[in-house]
Amino acid sequence: MNGNVIDGKAVAAKIREETAAKVAELKAKYGKVPGLAVVIVGERKDSQTYVRMKKKACEEVGIASFGADLPESATQAEVLAVVAAFNANPDVHGILVQLPLPKHIDEQAVLGAISVEKDVDGFHPLNIGRLAMKGREPLFTPCTPLGCMVLLERCGIPIKGRRAVVVGRSNIVGMPAALLLNKRDATVTVVHSATPKAEAEAICRQADIIIAAAGQAQLVRGSWVKPGAAIIDVGTNPIDDKTKASGYRLVGDAHFDECKAVAGAITPVPGGVGPMTIAILLRNTAESGERFLTGAVKVSGAEKKQERKGLAKLLPTREQLASPLPVLAAAVGVAAGAVLQRATAGRR
Amino acid sequence: MNGNVIDGKAVAAKIREETAAKVAELKAKYGKVPGLAVVIVGERKDSQTYVRMKKKACEEVGIASFGADLPESATQAEVLAVVAAFNANPDVHGILVQLPLPKHIDEQAVLGAISVEKDVDGFHPLNIGRLAMKGREPLFTPCTPLGCMVLLERCGIPIKGRRAVVVGRSNIVGMPAALLLNKRDATVTVVHSATPKAEAEAICRQADIIIAAAGQAQLVRGSWVKPGAAIIDVGTNPIDDKTKASGYRLVGDAHFDECKAVAGAITPVPGGVGPMTIAILLRNTAESGERFLTGAVKVSGAEKKQERKGLAKLLPTREQLASPLPVLAAAVGVAAGAVLQRATAGRR
Repeated sequence: MNGNVIDGKAVAAKIREETAAKVAELKAKYGKVPGLAVVIVGERKDSQTYVRMKKKACEEVGIASFGADLPESATQAEVLAVVAAFNANPDVHGILVQLPLPKHIDEQAVLGAISVEKDVDGFHPLNIGRLAMKGREPLFTPCTPLGCMVLLERCGIPIKGRRAVVVGRSNIVGMPAALLLNKRDATVTVVHSATPKAEAEAICRQADIIIAAAGQAQLVRGSWVKPGAAIIDVGTNPIDDKTKASGYRLVGDAHFDECKAVAGAITPVPGGVGPMTIAILLRNTAESGERFLTGAVKVSGAEKKQERKGLAKLLPTREQLASPLPVLAAAVGVAAGAVLQRATAGRR
Repeated sequence: MNGNVIDGKAVAAKIREETAAKVAELKAKYGKVPGLAVVIVGERKDSQTYVRMKKKACEEVGIASFGADLPESATQAEVLAVVAAFNANPDVHGILVQLPLPKHIDEQAVLGAISVEKDVDGFHPLNIGRLAMKGREPLFTPCTPLGCMVLLERCGIPIKGRRAVVVGRSNIVGMPAALLLNKRDATVTVVHSATPKAEAEAICRQADIIIAAAGQAQLVRGSWVKPGAAIIDVGTNPIDDKTKASGYRLVGDAHFDECKAVAGAITPVPGGVGPMTIAILLRNTAESGERFLTGAVKVSGAEKKQERKGLAKLLPTREQLASPLPVLAAAVGVAAGAVLQRATAGRR
């Protein structure tokens, strides 16, 4: 912390360091490293940037990175075939499909096809279900919400028995953040687009912890904050700023200056939650690699069989995987622009 | 409603009537009726009573009921084999395992083995995950929480944009009730054992809807209730009552007389939520039967394959199923006390 500002970069650097140590340990013990496959479809500049950042981050901690770049015109069958190949690839322990996908691709079908054992994003309904359930643990917890929790914990902010408010209920941040906070014994309220704004403000003012994940620039004002509360700001919204060469700057879902004046702790944007997302992705991948390498995948017997045996039928054989590209091309007619690449070193 | 008391029996009777009509329609159209299998392990008197009630209720609406009674000494393999047989039986569209199971049986493994397409209790993590996720729908919603929602809806109590508090966070009531209320756009807070009691009271006093599902007799007092609020009381707790021949009576998680004086609407115990649970179980089973009979099971392609193909490997073949008992006995050595029975008519 710098004053009451939480240094997300520093916490993320620590997580990456711990992850690098874990990867080195696995390499020494098993002669193998965890592997992450990132699937991207289409040419969105922001998605390309995120994927590049993820691959670079993998290299830095020693995780093998695998990639599939599919053109905007890729069919759903092509995307599913790529996922199936990574499901079956024993060197891949985590699979991430960069969202959003082009409109003609069924996102649910693609995410649902990722083996739950390699779902490092934690978005599979089986993982979300386990996250919601008492006495169950998901194999993976979504990276951004888990990053929020790790920030709270590493900054010594108590959670158990405290009032927490999650602003926003997206599948990738708000909803799993609420489930996580509840699992750690906070008393959680979720406010959202159907909550009258005055009520959202009143509820936030009762909270010891606010997770702002509404995707609205500076929604949470100073007047919303109880003195001493912790604010974890997940938003990154561009707003006009003529003092910048780009003409804009990024702000969070909380009004930083106003909230900082009242809060006990607050994450900045950028440099707060952002760096945590990738750090947790790396940690999730390393944990997955460890589970596979030690043979200790923690899925209940029956569910695991449902998953495993189900996938076995969808997948190419191990021999086919020795040369993935021709097989995929033959199986689904992958377009010429689609490139399956292995990139442990060097940039894409 | 009688005054401000919600008549759960009347609403449940209406749901059963609608379900009976649906069953008759399916029978006329397809020559088949929906089927529910209830698995019970051990000799618990209360469980035996619940199972008997469920079977009787099935008969009344025309649903075929199937049963497996396993002795307390049954092994996990035996229980799983029974579930597998019902998974594979095309006349069974819903499978319910009566809880609690004996201690030596792994409840998660047994519940996880039920085909998600026949999980009429809605407890499978895939169904819970879909319930939590925006844009997804579970195949089945847990009966008691859904019963609470139906009571609210049929009594014309608005949910969208209202403050709701769920007291308790069990996997079978509190947690799914919170997810359901959120899905219907209430602003939901979950209070639980780690919430300071004074705070639980203060939060409840802000609520338009209170779902009391803590399993604590008369926890919610009149002072907890905002004038006009709706209280859905899921508790059924025995307390001493010397005026009764039995020496006890059942009370809810809300103090009925105190709360009734303040609330706009309240469910009694008994006669409130209780009758709804079985009514919704019947409705879930009829919906499942309809899905199977019309061939319209709404699972996403990839997930369905994971489920279906996984199960196919676990299950006896269709020929084996023609005579289930010898196969099961051969496969897992079912104890002599285990009886697989079909009981469309007559009591067990």
